[in-house]
Amino acid sequence: MSIFNFFGKQRTAPAARERLQVLLAHERVSAGSDLISLLREEILAVIAKHVQVDSERVRVTMDRDEHMSILEIDVEIPLGASVRAA
Amino acid sequence: MSIFNFFGKQRTAPAARERLQVLLAHERVSAGSDLISLLREEILAVIAKHVQVDSERVRVTMDRDEHMSILEIDVEIPLGASVRAA
Repeated sequence: MSIFNFFGKQRTAPAARERLQVLLAHERVSAGSDLISLLREEILAVIAKHVQVDSERVRVTMDRDEHMSILEIDVEIPLGASVRAA
Repeated sequence: MSIFNFFGKQRTAPAARERLQVLLAHERVSAGSDLISLLREEILAVIAKHVQVDSERVRVTMDRDEHMSILEIDVEIPLGASVRAA
């Protein structure tokens, strides 16, 4: 399955707003390092720097099994919300 | 299909190294804003801050159709590479 399908199938129709989805998967050998938790706040900060983000429209979920941690960030971007270059 | 399956199926066996995959999908209403290109460099910088990254082991691909832009970052993390907290 192409990644477009994966994201596309969840597409809300009609697109009355824009949407940013971020998926992070860390495939680990040992259970030790928790890279995903380290990256989470900083990636949210990078997004907030460029997009007007309403905290109520940001969904953050984390999943973890023996060898993989997954972080999913789903941001609804209201139409007309400005995208700041820097 | 759960997201674990999506990432899991590409799992390299046996895991002789760790792997970080980042997927960003921006579902747009208009073709205008190029949020993914804006976020790309800063997310790579956040990753490099926390993980010893060898530029030859980082694959960055971008795809774009009429209403969606997708960025995929695939980082191979050599075993024993340090994960820095800050």
